[in-house]
Amino acid sequence: MEEKVTPLFALRHSAAHLLAQAVTELYPETKLTIGPVTEHGFFYDFLPEKNFTIDDLPAIEKRMHELAKKNYEIRGGQVPKAEASALYPNNQFKQELIDGIPGETVGIYYQGDFFDLCRGGHVERLGEIKHFRLTAVSGSYWRADRSGIALQRITGIAFLTKEDMDAYFERVEEAKKYDHRTLGPELDLFSFHEESAGGVFFHPKGTKIFHELLAWSRHLQEKDGYVEIKTPLLNHESLYKTSGHYDNYKENAYEVMVEGHPHWIRPMNCPSCVLFFKQKPHSYRELPMRIAEYGLCHRYELSGVLHGLFRVRSFTQDDAHIFCMPAQLEDEIVKVLELTQKIYKPFGFTELKIAVATRPIKSMGTDEMWSQSISSLTKGLDTLNLDYEMKDGEGAFYGPKIEIQIEDRLGRLWQCGTVQVDFNMPHNFKIGVVQSDQSKAEPVIIHRAIYGSIERFMGILIEHTKGHLPFWLSPVQMTVLTITDKQEAGAREYQKQLQAAGFRVEIDASSDKISAKIRRSQLSKIPMMLVVGGREIEQGVVTVRRSDGSQESGVAIDALIEKAKEMLLY
Amino acid sequence: MEEKVTPLFALRHSAAHLLAQAVTELYPETKLTIGPVTEHGFFYDFLPEKNFTIDDLPAIEKRMHELAKKNYEIRGGQVPKAEASALYPNNQFKQELIDGIPGETVGIYYQGDFFDLCRGGHVERLGEIKHFRLTAVSGSYWRADRSGIALQRITGIAFLTKEDMDAYFERVEEAKKYDHRTLGPELDLFSFHEESAGGVFFHPKGTKIFHELLAWSRHLQEKDGYVEIKTPLLNHESLYKTSGHYDNYKENAYEVMVEGHPHWIRPMNCPSCVLFFKQKPHSYRELPMRIAEYGLCHRYELSGVLHGLFRVRSFTQDDAHIFCMPAQLEDEIVKVLELTQKIYKPFGFTELKIAVATRPIKSMGTDEMWSQSISSLTKGLDTLNLDYEMKDGEGAFYGPKIEIQIEDRLGRLWQCGTVQVDFNMPHNFKIGVVQSDQSKAEPVIIHRAIYGSIERFMGILIEHTKGHLPFWLSPVQMTVLTITDKQEAGAREYQKQLQAAGFRVEIDASSDKISAKIRRSQLSKIPMMLVVGGREIEQGVVTVRRSDGSQESGVAIDALIEKAKEMLLY
Repeated sequence: MEEKVTPLFALRHSAAHLLAQAVTELYPETKLTIGPVTEHGFFYDFLPEKNFTIDDLPAIEKRMHELAKKNYEIRGGQVPKAEASALYPNNQFKQELIDGIPGETVGIYYQGDFFDLCRGGHVERLGEIKHFRLTAVSGSYWRADRSGIALQRITGIAFLTKEDMDAYFERVEEAKKYDHRTLGPELDLFSFHEESAGGVFFHPKGTKIFHELLAWSRHLQEKDGYVEIKTPLLNHESLYKTSGHYDNYKENAYEVMVEGHPHWIRPMNCPSCVLFFKQKPHSYRELPMRIAEYGLCHRYELSGVLHGLFRVRSFTQDDAHIFCMPAQLEDEIVKVLELTQKIYKPFGFTELKIAVATRPIKSMGTDEMWSQSISSLTKGLDTLNLDYEMKDGEGAFYGPKIEIQIEDRLGRLWQCGTVQVDFNMPHNFKIGVVQSDQSKAEPVIIHRAIYGSIERFMGILIEHTKGHLPFWLSPVQMTVLTITDKQEAGAREYQKQLQAAGFRVEIDASSDKISAKIRRSQLSKIPMMLVVGGREIEQGVVTVRRSDGSQESGVAIDALIEKAKEMLLY
Repeated sequence: MEEKVTPLFALRHSAAHLLAQAVTELYPETKLTIGPVTEHGFFYDFLPEKNFTIDDLPAIEKRMHELAKKNYEIRGGQVPKAEASALYPNNQFKQELIDGIPGETVGIYYQGDFFDLCRGGHVERLGEIKHFRLTAVSGSYWRADRSGIALQRITGIAFLTKEDMDAYFERVEEAKKYDHRTLGPELDLFSFHEESAGGVFFHPKGTKIFHELLAWSRHLQEKDGYVEIKTPLLNHESLYKTSGHYDNYKENAYEVMVEGHPHWIRPMNCPSCVLFFKQKPHSYRELPMRIAEYGLCHRYELSGVLHGLFRVRSFTQDDAHIFCMPAQLEDEIVKVLELTQKIYKPFGFTELKIAVATRPIKSMGTDEMWSQSISSLTKGLDTLNLDYEMKDGEGAFYGPKIEIQIEDRLGRLWQCGTVQVDFNMPHNFKIGVVQSDQSKAEPVIIHRAIYGSIERFMGILIEHTKGHLPFWLSPVQMTVLTITDKQEAGAREYQKQLQAAGFRVEIDASSDKISAKIRRSQLSKIPMMLVVGGREIEQGVVTVRRSDGSQESGVAIDALIEKAKEMLLY
């Protein structure tokens, strides 16, 4: 068993069996495949005669409860493979599973007449499975192979107690409120349109956030000696054959015919950056070269898996490729990790979960290249006293990498940053750097992204902050709210002064009551409201009301500008 | 005759006949089509048996000279159409031309045995055609219809005197030196790569220029109340069917299949902007809404017509769509024209050549809509005392427009800006704006671009300035040049101070002689060189040397910063 059999695991694993039993009874022609435990429950993949719909779930759930009440004992154990095989005369999936299990025997477990191929780890009796719910039907593929057999997945959740299940649903409700797909349109940040599935329409406020995220990254990258390029999206597929992406990415790339030749809308920026690097010869003295591109990428995703800003068909990477000699790797890794910490810091992402993925069985390059570069990665992490775990054998075939996860306020982990060493691309593109003795040497490339996808990072931020973006990032930073019409001219004067100082300031000079104006600004999650009545105008001050409810009166505009400037990043 | 028959026109027109005569003698199976006069000479489109190559031109040119020496008289005049028709038994092109000419007669002119269909306007004898040269062979299409018959175009130049022809070639040579395709790579601004024909690879310096151009536009647009959006490139073709672009743009759009549905990589931004506008209802109080997008467009161009930054397959428009009520049109036109003048000013483009294109025969909308909007355009131009010509009947079928040409230092005109009124798209997308009485009214859309394509504008700028971009736009604004190694630390300190003040500053602390360093900076067309010797460091000053050769010594860094700030736009 790979998973640890906790009582919760046993419960969920058994719930998957119970689901399979109910489906078998209701739809006897259905073929069973696999049914693993998940983060909150379980799923089971079936090949039914006719696709399931969401409307079938209540009946299946009802049958599960009926079967649970019969309280069958779950019993079973190891049987010879031939015997197990004979139990599935018409099920190629189970046959394939049995063939794939090492050893002479496999586990078969029974509950009533129903049996399933299984490694064990159950509750004792079905009656223990009380608190569960079926939540979704979706399409899936046998062995997750898209070109293979299409299956139907029924997903459920299961808990040990009613309290746990209720708490789960509460968390789901809470998360829904702060789901970026709800908050985004509510705050007028972005929308989606059916004419462009998986493409984000950034509204003016969302566009501001996007640009501020880029500006922050640019600011720090320029200090670190990065240069920025801008390269085309539409490239001849030969570029991806050279880079080696062709075989692995073909099904994720959009193909376009141009004058009879297949081109790709680029799914990644790396090959374009290498073309730029190669356009003239380079001396070792120019290295390391840190070349950034905020590159727009398109990847073919099934419309069914698209998910707000988290999974889109087009996105912008804060990509960079560092061309350096192997001896420079460690220093560059330290610099990249420091930059990563700096970029994440103002969002409150200070706790990073880091892993180093090492050489897989199928891989290129010499042992020396691998051990030297893995040691550069770990030394770099050690230099900065960063904790990390080793993921043995989980690197790419062309080099080891560092994976960086951030933890949001809901305790969820998101992998955004990656630092990937690449021996392959310099080799494929035959990049040589002229050494001091005029000979040519092959540099390595570090691929690195910190936000990852700007779109996805924005989605994470919106949920992380529940829409209350930090002051520097807010598309509208202040609203000037007049108490009566008389203050309009004065309020506009304030707005002008604040805008001249570089702030994004709106005004609400409508004839609504001040309480309504405050409410409106709060709903728009504007960090600073500046309330202006007759006395304020007379004295040249405002009352500052923050989104947390705190308030300060008699603040002069100059003093306000000083305070607000302290909340900017640079 | 539409063209005025000047002596130069008559010469060039006759040179086209001479070319046709030479080709007919050398390649008797060639069919003649048309041969008009151009800016510097003439061309003739043929349907030859076998395509011409550049290597055929010397022989054709030789035959032209031989024929010219025979000094045939050019004679002819009007003949009945039937008679002319009988002269071209196997030439469908001439038949089509004859049929298309109004009236009962057409012109036929002879020189020796050779004759051609023609409206007249010749030199008296072929011997007058002395100073000419054939310059190019290219593909063309009958009636410029790409889906029609492919022809072969031979292009030439012709002048009245040898001096004029020599001067022309001198200008060509001069222009070649400042051709952006030469200067761009020389100044390390951009390159092209065969893997992405028609796609620009902006190097770090070119990327800076690109961003500065955007920043200048953004700065002024924000002041004018524009908001900015960011929308996806890949859209279902149904969007373009709704917008009405489908029929006219299909052959210029890149098609991509997504889940079995044809999508386009967008050739224009307008429909995406309308989707954004439509995502929520709008009240008349919100209008005018000025919505900008620096939108990346892709257009299918034959690889043969690609030309540096001037003609590419992907480019970024400084696009905006103004949604307003017809009564707001005039004010908006004035604002757009003022903005246009402001944006062009720092490039020295102060002389604008403006035309107003009015209702064509095939068009939509009522007479009232047309006359009202044309009058809004002309009134707007009058308000600003701008000269313009009327181009009767040359508007788009969906509304009138203003075309704005700029004149560069070589006297060439470039159309960059357009202001297009559109009645069609609001109609096609059924956009309604809620009026004060709750009824819905249809707004108009003003499409406007000022740079046009940022890529092309950059190309124009490079040639216009011969690579000497204005200080504010220069990717490197200053270089600090040390006289000896001893000044390196001090020079780096200067660089830091200047960078902290926001300038783009490089340092040349190599061990080369100062004259070599100055030469290098000059070749890179850096506007300000700061020469630093021991005395300068001691006194905390620099010697400022400008690219025009002027020099000022003993300038303190603070004073330099002040002066340099005056050269910025804002």
